[in-house]
Amino acid sequence: MANNLLQGKKGIIFGALNEQSIAWKVAKQCYEEGAQIVLSNAPVALRMGEINNLAVACGNAPVIGADVTNMDDLKNLFEKTLEHFGGGIDFILHSVGMSVNVRKGLDYYDINYQNNQKTFDISSISLHKILKTAWDLDALNEWGSVVALTYIAAQRVFPDYNEMADAKALLESITRNFGYYYGNKKKVRINTVSQSPVKTTAGGGVKGFDGFMEYAAKMSPLGNATSDACANYVVSLFSDLSKFVTMQNLFHDGGFSFTGVTPEVIQSMYPPEK
Amino acid sequence: MANNLLQGKKGIIFGALNEQSIAWKVAKQCYEEGAQIVLSNAPVALRMGEINNLAVACGNAPVIGADVTNMDDLKNLFEKTLEHFGGGIDFILHSVGMSVNVRKGLDYYDINYQNNQKTFDISSISLHKILKTAWDLDALNEWGSVVALTYIAAQRVFPDYNEMADAKALLESITRNFGYYYGNKKKVRINTVSQSPVKTTAGGGVKGFDGFMEYAAKMSPLGNATSDACANYVVSLFSDLSKFVTMQNLFHDGGFSFTGVTPEVIQSMYPPEK
Amino acid sequence: MANNLLQGKKGIIFGALNEQSIAWKVAKQCYEEGAQIVLSNAPVALRMGEINNLAVACGNAPVIGADVTNMDDLKNLFEKTLEHFGGGIDFILHSVGMSVNVRKGLDYYDINYQNNQKTFDISSISLHKILKTAWDLDALNEWGSVVALTYIAAQRVFPDYNEMADAKALLESITRNFGYYYGNKKKVRINTVSQSPVKTTAGGGVKGFDGFMEYAAKMSPLGNATSDACANYVVSLFSDLSKFVTMQNLFHDGGFSFTGVTPEVIQSMYPPEK
Amino acid sequence: MANNLLQGKKGIIFGALNEQSIAWKVAKQCYEEGAQIVLSNAPVALRMGEINNLAVACGNAPVIGADVTNMDDLKNLFEKTLEHFGGGIDFILHSVGMSVNVRKGLDYYDINYQNNQKTFDISSISLHKILKTAWDLDALNEWGSVVALTYIAAQRVFPDYNEMADAKALLESITRNFGYYYGNKKKVRINTVSQSPVKTTAGGGVKGFDGFMEYAAKMSPLGNATSDACANYVVSLFSDLSKFVTMQNLFHDGGFSFTGVTPEVIQSMYPPEK
Repeated sequence: MANNLLQGKKGIIFGALNEQSIAWKVAKQCYEEGAQIVLSNAPVALRMGEINNLAVACGNAPVIGADVTNMDDLKNLFEKTLEHFGGGIDFILHSVGMSVNVRKGLDYYDINYQNNQKTFDISSISLHKILKTAWDLDALNEWGSVVALTYIAAQRVFPDYNEMADAKALLESITRNFGYYYGNKKKVRINTVSQSPVKTTAGGGVKGFDGFMEYAAKMSPLGNATSDACANYVVSLFSDLSKFVTMQNLFHDGGFSFTGVTPEVIQSMYPPEK
Repeated sequence: MANNLLQGKKGIIFGALNEQSIAWKVAKQCYEEGAQIVLSNAPVALRMGEINNLAVACGNAPVIGADVTNMDDLKNLFEKTLEHFGGGIDFILHSVGMSVNVRKGLDYYDINYQNNQKTFDISSISLHKILKTAWDLDALNEWGSVVALTYIAAQRVFPDYNEMADAKALLESITRNFGYYYGNKKKVRINTVSQSPVKTTAGGGVKGFDGFMEYAAKMSPLGNATSDACANYVVSLFSDLSKFVTMQNLFHDGGFSFTGVTPEVIQSMYPPEK
Repeated sequence: MANNLLQGKKGIIFGALNEQSIAWKVAKQCYEEGAQIVLSNAPVALRMGEINNLAVACGNAPVIGADVTNMDDLKNLFEKTLEHFGGGIDFILHSVGMSVNVRKGLDYYDINYQNNQKTFDISSISLHKILKTAWDLDALNEWGSVVALTYIAAQRVFPDYNEMADAKALLESITRNFGYYYGNKKKVRINTVSQSPVKTTAGGGVKGFDGFMEYAAKMSPLGNATSDACANYVVSLFSDLSKFVTMQNLFHDGGFSFTGVTPEVIQSMYPPEK
Repeated sequence: MANNLLQGKKGIIFGALNEQSIAWKVAKQCYEEGAQIVLSNAPVALRMGEINNLAVACGNAPVIGADVTNMDDLKNLFEKTLEHFGGGIDFILHSVGMSVNVRKGLDYYDINYQNNQKTFDISSISLHKILKTAWDLDALNEWGSVVALTYIAAQRVFPDYNEMADAKALLESITRNFGYYYGNKKKVRINTVSQSPVKTTAGGGVKGFDGFMEYAAKMSPLGNATSDACANYVVSLFSDLSKFVTMQNLFHDGGFSFTGVTPEVIQSMYPPEK
């Protein structure tokens, strides 16, 4: 698609790592819809180099490294971005999450608390820090739109998702609370999108992921939402079509979250005898 | 706006009465985004005649009367629509609601049960009947989109909304359940949009409405969502940008539903002494 | 247990059919906790005769037939109950539900609308009629407690539950709305309890029920809640321990509703190869 | 009341500071219902000395200091408790929360991040640490019950509640996730109780609290729930009456959370002219 939905708009995309990343697809889709983009990721992620291909595909978008837990880095990123754009920012994508405890395969009741703190800093409080940086610099334009990616584990327990469930619940609360203040101040809206499981580098780290994706597909009347579809949906949330949608968690999951059970699941568990 | 978002798509709009109607704005917006439209309303509403102005503004859209509680009327509407379009339907707006008990100012604990049944028939079960008619005629195209308008009273009690709260809760449940089946069958998605209070002919029937609208504005960080904005949002839900969003209730209310209280409300109640 | 939790309290139990009924267990448990009871059910259910055994076990509790869709029957029931008790009522259990469409195995998209209306009348609007009858006769004492049994299908789709999902969503909305009014008027609280699947005469009517109960057990960290446990929980809601709990849906399901998936389910679907 | 509901049960109460504390009332109520108690609080709180009066009133309950962010302190507390009881623990109350940012009156968009981390450590992650300590020592008996106190700000924005809203959202997520694991392991249930505002030493720190309490009362059909009533409710959750209730957030607020608006609020804002 290409409907000039974001013509004249400018935004920062956090978290594009490689072609599998949802953030990667969002960046490309925003560019195709007429937006100007700045790309940001952690310095260690930038060193992998793939993001430069994305930058080229997005009209030579600047790539500016930032540790999202570091207020100085964020200030530098926003200042350079404002300078590059020659004006304010219209949208931000937060697609950032990391858990050393999950990577190490530690059980929820056996996590390391220092890693737990890092998980929350990187995956949740980073949104607060990004928004506070924008707030202090008055970097977001009126009717700007911020989207953070989340997961249904913030509402119901998915054991393999581990402490990331808590991180996402915290992220959704920060979305709600900062959404209130930024809405009052400058009509900025802030929402989370709760996406189907997708085989990204991040998602792939969760054990038993293939079986889980099949299960999720069987529980979703429309099937698992793809990351391309997610990019389209995020574009609609950045566009002027959704100006009064804020402080919400919006499911983009083919119906998974409101499906209690399906015959496909029951039949997989209890195949009819022949 | 006009981004050809609905180019080539065809839909039925239920419930446009006059220029104040949300359905009226949705119809115009869909037409401007490239869609073809059929308009429908109850025979008694059609007799008021204003809808013909809308039909002209939408490229001489056909106006086909239908009592949404009557399966024969609905069958006739869908058959004529399929014939007019020369093919299947891509989207449906359900903006239908009526309560004699509310009009008569009867309290919730004092409603007439025959009127209550009519309220549910017209305001809620009509969605089931519309979808069943489409289902039986296989009238909806793959990845079609259905939106019904609802209100936060389905989740929390707003005394003046009366039995319409129950009607909207029922409507949202039908949305979820039919969304499951139609998603499975033909990738059709079905959602409700929970809209800010708007001064329509329908909304105006509720007593104390002006005070309530001011209260709602004070409780919404972005202010009350207008019906023009609602039309934009519904367009995004009819477009291909939201293909995996289904079985949900989506708030379009400037943040009202996730705001617990605001200083403006407290200060109105307890003005600081001078 | 027997802790005199309901000493001096008086209540009506709707819906005890036989020993499998949750209402049966609730009645017995209330009696053992010191309450006086009146039993009511539909005339056709009374003719089956088993309820008289329950009446004996509850200190010769009166059994008064009432069609819960009939305001005259309900008035008669409440008047006789008030006379029998020589005073007001402290608690009511609503355990009533019936769907001819489910019994006939009709699919959700193929239901008969006259039966659908009956389903809502019996399963949902009956609660409104019971409460309105109590309201008009001022039959409920201050701080009285009303509980209606519901199911998670009111929030998420369980295909075999069919139109009963809509009926339960409507029941929960009526609970919320009447809870507001009766709370304001007389401090009466009204809640629903969303119970695990149980093999009752009612529950047994749903097809594939055994497989579903196994699935539910595998999805519940504490296992499926038994009907004896449900009776205990309802007693706590009738007691003075829960005086400020109202307008809520309370899950009594061993954790099912907040569990997204479990390893047991995934392993049943995808057994590890040997 | 005194119905021997907790006869033979043993529990730890965290967070009793003085007679205004909800934890204080819970401890007394548990004791009156037949339970044995161990009291714990932060060393700095113990130094204020009032808790010793509570200990005496609870049959000379041991008072054991513990910094809930410190795993060594918690291990010591649980080991001494197990030794004192001569066996396992049946219930735990978590009534712990502290925010330096709130105390300092910093706005949500202007918080200090080191204080924010402390807020989460003390108010939320402490529950995880308590449960992990119990888990590692196998300190909780089968069918044990854990309750943590929370607030509706975890679901909707109450500006003055500030970052404590995020802390409570995190607390509720930890409740859900640990509830899953401890339910699976040992049938232990874990829930939060979302209580009406109460004038405690903690609650009193929030600015504009009196006006807010009046507002909350006007929005609650049953009025604000008292802390005595809260203690009763927590007793019911510790008792065997609620064995299958887990992983939930239960509102104990007189109907506040499901009331959208009331005539009392609208009339306070817009008094009718004379």
